[in-house]
Amino acid sequence: MLTIVVYDVSVDKVNKVCKILRQYMNWVQNSVFEGDLTKNDVKEIEDKVKGLIDIERDSIIFYFIENENFIKKMYLGKKKANLSKIL
Amino acid sequence: MLTIVVYDVSVDKVNKVCKILRQYMNWVQNSVFEGDLTKNDVKEIEDKVKGLIDIERDSIIFYFIENENFIKKMYLGKKKANLSKIL
Repeated sequence: MLTIVVYDVSVDKVNKVCKILRQYMNWVQNSVFEGDLTKNDVKEIEDKVKGLIDIERDSIIFYFIENENFIKKMYLGKKKANLSKIL
Repeated sequence: MLTIVVYDVSVDKVNKVCKILRQYMNWVQNSVFEGDLTKNDVKEIEDKVKGLIDIERDSIIFYFIENENFIKKMYLGKKKANLSKIL
């Protein structure tokens, strides 16, 4: 399942969240990852991240897209990552 | 057209980019906006933002989704904005 993850967490957690997401997804730019996740991947990320973030302050959003034909992407400025696949 | 915008720009431009996007879209969390944009809106945002960002360093990504049925959203942690519509 195509997935975009964006996170807004306190500074001391940024690297930790980034490290977890990097195991499953591609870094796109600061606080943004893209990937093709299974339901099990999502569950694993949830479990790892929930033990880390402060649910009263930190926020992580997952956008799930059914099919890559349903989404188009446009860059303004620098493309910070060279993704080998999807989106 | 449903649109998610994520930006990764130098600190001195964050507020300016935010201010432009806020004219057209809903703030969701740090560096993330969602909105329902016309092609003309996109053109206007492009024109305004291009005059502002450093194309060698700053990055803004637009994700366009054809139909809201094609995307699902999941929060972990705090929902930082109460959106009145879409996504």
